[in-house]
Parts: sequence; structure tokens; C-alpha cells
Amino acid sequence: MKFRLVKKSRESYARAGIITTDHGVIRTPVFMPVGTQATVKTISPLELKKMRAQVILNNTYHLYLRPGEHLVRSAGGLHRFCSWNGPILTDSGGFQVFSLAELNKITPDGFYFQSHIDGSRHFFSPEKVVQIQRDLGSDIFMVLDECLPYPCEYAAAKRSLQLTLDWAKRSLQIFNATKSTHGYDQAMFAIVQGSTFIDLRKECTRKLIEMDFPGYAIGGLSVGEPKDDMYNIAAVCCDLLPENKPRYLMGVGKPEDLLESIERGIDMFDCIIPTRNGRNGTAYTSEGAIVIKNATYREQFIPLDENCDCYTCRTFTRAYLRHLYQAREILVLRLVSYHNLYFYLRLMENARKAILESRFSAWKKQFLIRYLKNK
Amino acid sequence: MKFRLVKKSRESYARAGIITTDHGVIRTPVFMPVGTQATVKTISPLELKKMRAQVILNNTYHLYLRPGEHLVRSAGGLHRFCSWNGPILTDSGGFQVFSLAELNKITPDGFYFQSHIDGSRHFFSPEKVVQIQRDLGSDIFMVLDECLPYPCEYAAAKRSLQLTLDWAKRSLQIFNATKSTHGYDQAMFAIVQGSTFIDLRKECTRKLIEMDFPGYAIGGLSVGEPKDDMYNIAAVCCDLLPENKPRYLMGVGKPEDLLESIERGIDMFDCIIPTRNGRNGTAYTSEGAIVIKNATYREQFIPLDENCDCYTCRTFTRAYLRHLYQAREILVLRLVSYHNLYFYLRLMENARKAILESRFSAWKKQFLIRYLKNK
Repeated sequence: MKFRLVKKSRESYARAGIITTDHGVIRTPVFMPVGTQATVKTISPLELKKMRAQVILNNTYHLYLRPGEHLVRSAGGLHRFCSWNGPILTDSGGFQVFSLAELNKITPDGFYFQSHIDGSRHFFSPEKVVQIQRDLGSDIFMVLDECLPYPCEYAAAKRSLQLTLDWAKRSLQIFNATKSTHGYDQAMFAIVQGSTFIDLRKECTRKLIEMDFPGYAIGGLSVGEPKDDMYNIAAVCCDLLPENKPRYLMGVGKPEDLLESIERGIDMFDCIIPTRNGRNGTAYTSEGAIVIKNATYREQFIPLDENCDCYTCRTFTRAYLRHLYQAREILVLRLVSYHNLYFYLRLMENARKAILESRFSAWKKQFLIRYLKNK
Repeated sequence: MKFRLVKKSRESYARAGIITTDHGVIRTPVFMPVGTQATVKTISPLELKKMRAQVILNNTYHLYLRPGEHLVRSAGGLHRFCSWNGPILTDSGGFQVFSLAELNKITPDGFYFQSHIDGSRHFFSPEKVVQIQRDLGSDIFMVLDECLPYPCEYAAAKRSLQLTLDWAKRSLQIFNATKSTHGYDQAMFAIVQGSTFIDLRKECTRKLIEMDFPGYAIGGLSVGEPKDDMYNIAAVCCDLLPENKPRYLMGVGKPEDLLESIERGIDMFDCIIPTRNGRNGTAYTSEGAIVIKNATYREQFIPLDENCDCYTCRTFTRAYLRHLYQAREILVLRLVSYHNLYFYLRLMENARKAILESRFSAWKKQFLIRYLKNK
């Protein structure tokens, strides 16, 4: 993996770059559609191409449990398994062990946990998670990290920091001692933790920089902390992080969060919002989010977003989509998910264009006035 | 609507024809994907075009209840509402009143029933159902009929026959006294009933022929009767029906049923099997049906059907599809439904080609040897 910084904004920390992987290039800022179980829910790989998705995210915890990394390895890796031939990033499973599984014990060695599917017992160590991701064959993968809840005591966050740094070091050792399972290049990113404590975040960032990872993620945010904390931590970390490496804000967020974070120096995002909220009937449009099941849309024979040229908006009316939702038809889950992902991807493309043309902050302001006007 | 008989088989009653509607032509024999609630479940109109669907079926009972024919009328009719610009056939709702709703009373006037959705009370008469279908704006629609259960007493079937004929006549009167709501041509087909009693079927067929409908459906089959009864009744009706009008066997069936019925003179089919069974994980292939969730497919890195060139088969392995099924991912419902519809549509295309090339019976035999070999 290589990263090249193409443009730095003068008026903010916004930047545009290019990540090159063996499965293709990624132009940043980038939003990565989430394909938890080796599928972006309801969406086909062909549709991902059509909406110009550049990279998708798969989930190590989920794929380890089902179908298992050995099956994916037999299939020739994730790209072949799910027929997505562009870049794939996997997260380490640390977040899911906390949020989804039953965590039985955490030791300096790793996590002991029980599967959310069948209660079976498992163990994740930094080393094991590297090997799983070797077998899955993602282009970019994450070190195992401890994701803290919010709020979190300072002492607990400080203790955890040491674990995070220790695990990052061990991850790097095993990474360097092993080879790609499937022959192509893989890069491993570190994850900055430290809860909402600025000094811990700074310390974590500095020590991870010393270890010289090819990219850095900021984890443990979007877990309930105030938005200003999130933006502030993103800014503090970006300020320290080396310019020539990509920065990935994990699990964020809403359209406005993405723009605020880009302005603070973030390059990469992933979030379930466009797909999960899409399945729940929320569509993101240039004039804000709308809840398509509401009766107000019953006879609106206009698209979800009149400024959108996605398949859903070119083809269907709000009235029809609402009917599908009322009638519990699966098609609407696809159509709204597709639109939402398309909306997010265009937002990132437009942000990049604005950065390249030195007008990011003005563009962002214009977008947000319209986007937030009904709030 | 016009029907032109293009070719009659010499060795059987199989035939190829062309139905022309204001929304395009339909080459018969034809399978019509079922889009109950103005959507073929999980499948987009674009995909229907790609799989070369010629005509889809929508359901009067369902659309009357939700979203209501008035909303569809406001939308400009079904084609605009659901963005399918090819021909649409609607069935009359008679079958659903029996199978789905709570039927409260049947009188010479019509059906009193309660909605399966909310228990609300409704009334369907032949006249009302014609008006609903005028507003829905299907290209071909059906008269209201009484669909009998199987088995059925002879006396009950005989009584019902009179109602069917009486309602067909009333349907024709109201049809001729009304105009298309949306400006384009609509044709109304009669439905032959008579349970499994050959003499009643013959009587019904003859009397409906006297009324001179532009097409004839055979209803009340595929409701539990032996297959031989179904094939036999199809043959008896086709033998009487005029050559220059299309014949539609309602609600049938499995691939082998379609071929047997084509051989007996049927032109049109609809069935939920490819989509419903697709969602349940059954895929139809050139070597028979397979249940993709079975463990035997866990590591089969081959397509559902190696002889199929649909998107699903060109792109995904059985192992991946099984994973999606195990992981309860919506994408698999789409992918298997798509494959199954593609399989059915290709089966009909191949049948037509064989008829045109005077080799239908040999082709059918070859297909069935392979298709049924694992049974």
C-alpha cells in the first residue's frame, strides 16, 4: 500500500490523497461502505461498482465466526469469496468483541469472549487477529485494540492505553514475521485510543507514530461522546500524525460529521448509517434526512432527492418507495440503501473536488446550509 | 391487445405466438414473474429487463387494499407507479379472497370479505373489480371468479359454474360500458373454472367461448389436485379453446409443469415458485432444484448452475451464497430469486425456439432427463 498526498487545503486541515493497493487505487477523502459479513447489506458488487464505491469494509469478528477464515482462505480470500475485486479493509474485531459478543475476560494476552451467534467460546490475541486477516486477505487491516465505553474513568483509560500500545507492538512483530496468504500486498494500520482524554490521545498517537505504521486509525469515537469531543480528538490526532500517511476515523458518521472531520484532516471513514438507516426507511438527501415511511410522502410523485441522479432517484417516486415500505417489500431496503450509499459517495467526491479546487470550506458551508435547513 | 399464432407444433399441441399490447409485445410461451404488490419481490425493474422478462403480473386484491387503486390511478397507473414499462397483467383477486382474506359471504352479487392486513370489511363484485383494474391500468386483466378448493363436491362445482358464467357476462358488460382510465388499450380475459370435473370444465369453456373474450385463462388448478388432473384439464380446455386466442394457465408451476402444459397447448404462465422458493433458498438449475442452505454446498466454489449465464451464476459460488443464507443476508434472497427467474425465462425462450424449429418434444425430453436425473 502506498499513500500520496495530492493536495493540502490552505484554509483548513482538509486534504486529498491517493492510496494505492494491489486491488486498485482509493482517492481520499473516502467513505467505505460497510460489508460486515462479506456483503454490503442488500447491495450487489455490481451495484457497488456502479455507485463508484472505491473500497469496502469487512468485519474480522463476524467472518471469523461465520463462515470462518479457513473457508474464506479456501475461496482464495475475501475478494474472490464475495466477488468484489476492489480494495477491502477489515477491522480487527476489537470493537465487536465489546459491543456484540459476551466478553468474558481481558488479559494482557488478549480477549476471551463468547460468540453472539451461538455462545461458543473464543480467544482473540493480537497475533491471532493478524493471522485471521492474513487469511481473509484484506488489502488494509487493523491491529487488535481495546475499545473503551463512554464515559470512561481516566485511570481505566490510562491502563488501557498501555495495553493498546503493547498490542500494537506485538501486532507489528507478527505482521513482519508473516507473509500475505494470497500473494498480494497487505498493510496494517494502528488504532489510536485514549477515550476523550486529550493527553492520553496525544500520548497514544505519539507512541504509535514511533512504531511507524503505514496508516493510522482513530478508534473509540462515535460511542456516545459529545460531537465536539469527537471533532476535537480528530483534530488533535491529525495535528500529530505524519502528513504522508492516511488517517481513518473509525465508525463515523453522519454526513455533517464526515465534512467536519475532513476539515480537521481525516482521509477515511466507514459507517453503517447509510445502510442500516436506509433499511429503517431513512433516506439522506441534499435537503436533509427524510423518513420515507411517513404518511406525508404518500402521494409525493417526486424522487427521494431531486438533486440526485442515482438509479433509485431516476426511477422511483417517494410515493412508490413509501408503498414498498408499508407493504414490507425487500426491494425498498435495496433502493434506499443504494441511494444513501450513492449520496455518501458523491458527498466524498464533491468534497475531494472542492479540496483540489481550493474551495472546500465554502463548499462545505453551502452544503450544510441546505442540508441542515429543515433541522 | 392482439394475438397472432406464429407456429403450431405437428407432434403435439405446443404453439408459439405473439401478443401485442400498447406496452410492448409478448412472445409465447411466456412465464410472467409475479409482482404481487407492484414489485417482483427483491428484484428491480432494471433487473427484470436484464433477465428479459416480457410481462409481469400484479395483484388486484393486494393493490386494492394497499396502496389502493386511487393512489395508483393518481400515479398514472401501474407502469408509472412501479417503473415497469413493459406489459402488465393483473389477476382479479378472486383467488386471494379465498386463499388469504377472510371470506364472509358470497352472494350472486359478489364477495364480502375482510382484509388479511387489518380485518377491514370489503366487497368485490365483477363490476367493481373491472373498475379497479381500469384504474390500476394493467394491459391484460381478469374477470372476477370463484376459485374452488380441492377436493370439491360435484354439486358445489356445478353451482359455482353458473356463478362464474354469470360473472363473466357481467364483467363483459361493464368492460364494454367503460373506458381505459389511462388512455391505452386494456384486454380482459375470462377464467375457466369447474374444479376437476371434465364435463363442467368443457361446459364452462364452451360458454365462455360464446361470450368471445380476447383470451382465456384456466383457473382453479394447482390447488392440490393430482398433476395428471391438472395436465388433463389443461389439455381438455385447450382442445376446445379457439386457436387464435391466448391461453393462460394460472398459478402454474414447476419447470416440468410448464413444459407439460406447453405441450398441451398453453401459452402463458405465472407462479410464485421461482421467487418464493428462491427466498427460501431453493435454486432451480438445469440439473434439478438444489437447496443452497444445505451443508453439502459449504465448500463448493462453483456456480449454482454451471450451464447458466445469469449474473448470480457468473459472479458467485454456491459456497458464498450458502454463507449469505446462513448469515441471513438479504442479498442472497435477491441473487437466488434473480437466478430462478432467469432460469424460468430461459426455459420459456428455449421452449419457444424449439417449437419454432419443430423439435419441441425432443428438446423437452432432453431437458427433463437432465433436470429430473437426481430425483
